[in-house]
Amino acid sequence: MSLVPLRPELPQFLDAYLPKPVDARPFITLTYAQSLDSRISKGHGIRTNISHPETKTMTHYLRYHHDGILVGTGTALADNPGLNCKYLDEVERSPRPIVLNFSQKWKFEGSKMHELFLNRQGRSPIVVLSEEPAQREPDVSYLICASMDWQLLFDRLYAEYGLKSIMVEGGASVINQLLVRQELINSLIITIGPVYLGKDGVQVSPSISRELNDIQWWKGTTDVIMCARFRKVLS
Amino acid sequence: MSLVPLRPELPQFLDAYLPKPVDARPFITLTYAQSLDSRISKGHGIRTNISHPETKTMTHYLRYHHDGILVGTGTALADNPGLNCKYLDEVERSPRPIVLNFSQKWKFEGSKMHELFLNRQGRSPIVVLSEEPAQREPDVSYLICASMDWQLLFDRLYAEYGLKSIMVEGGASVINQLLVRQELINSLIITIGPVYLGKDGVQVSPSISRELNDIQWWKGTTDVIMCARFRKVLS
Repeated sequence: MSLVPLRPELPQFLDAYLPKPVDARPFITLTYAQSLDSRISKGHGIRTNISHPETKTMTHYLRYHHDGILVGTGTALADNPGLNCKYLDEVERSPRPIVLNFSQKWKFEGSKMHELFLNRQGRSPIVVLSEEPAQREPDVSYLICASMDWQLLFDRLYAEYGLKSIMVEGGASVINQLLVRQELINSLIITIGPVYLGKDGVQVSPSISRELNDIQWWKGTTDVIMCARFRKVLS
Repeated sequence: MSLVPLRPELPQFLDAYLPKPVDARPFITLTYAQSLDSRISKGHGIRTNISHPETKTMTHYLRYHHDGILVGTGTALADNPGLNCKYLDEVERSPRPIVLNFSQKWKFEGSKMHELFLNRQGRSPIVVLSEEPAQREPDVSYLICASMDWQLLFDRLYAEYGLKSIMVEGGASVINQLLVRQELINSLIITIGPVYLGKDGVQVSPSISRELNDIQWWKGTTDVIMCARFRKVLS
């Protein structure tokens, strides 16, 4: 599936929120598309269309500007995402997929990511585990983290893989964890689609309230996009 | 507290969604302000600031265009709302407050609504009950509905009080009920403020998914406003 053209005003709108060098750690962008009722899908494992094709193109434009793109196991298993960059079709500019796989249930072989990799349309993933996997898969890089520690994980992705910027795309569990780790997040880019997914949907809402700064909205054909930074970012 | 001036582009933006005559029933506008995570307050009974003063002015502009403004008992008790119209300061253009009070816990006397009424800054309410109240209060109109039936309630407010347009402002329980009664709702006007109120907040999310039509967004200083209609409105 090819992308619709990027809306011409988006590069300028997004510019201030794109990755910049930060000191000895990756620049982290948290991004997702939600319904009015802050659901990212109708239910676990249900891939739900929320956003307009023009905001999907923006996602690929953002991927183009990041070295890595991270998802949780739930998203990897439920959505079978490609996590490549279709913007400009330059495979070398595709981000490295980073898959949290503590459950070891996700396999590269047979995945959409694998298919794209074989077709030279996407890159091989970095898989994050708590221990050596039962069986190593070819072409996969492994990062063994004894326990889940976001700061340590980002630091190691920077130090060991040279990733200077990481886009976190979900799912809800990962997003909700990071919404309360504002000291780790440099940019927040949210698409809101004009639909209600209903109370049984998978929702984004942090455990505590959060305030934002540097808020900018963009109005698309049917969606809005909000760019912001967290208030009181510690660096 | 006086209002900041109405943003000059708002009357045109809102025009298509303002009340028009509908056949033998009131035009119903559902309106509320929510956080990114679709919360309307941090918790039950906690009055939470979500929106910019310019979008508060819009609320009063909308009130100016409606004959009635309805809230549930929870909101009446928790927020002690005035429900008057400060736009143009014409008391005769203030909507009639309509308070659902099946629990009979809310009293007009001593309320903000009462204070505004005594100061000729607001109108007296229509109180909706399931039975004759233990004691009738002066200046209050009573509407006895044996059970809660939205269509019948709106029909009676039209027939018995001549209300040709009603703005429903909350709280979450009322909004969630009406989000699944799309055949009763003519316009939906939502303000989204750039803040997360967190998972313990009072959330708006209907029991089932809902699609919208005729979607328009307005971008304010910090908030966005969405106007829409429900898809497949039965009339």
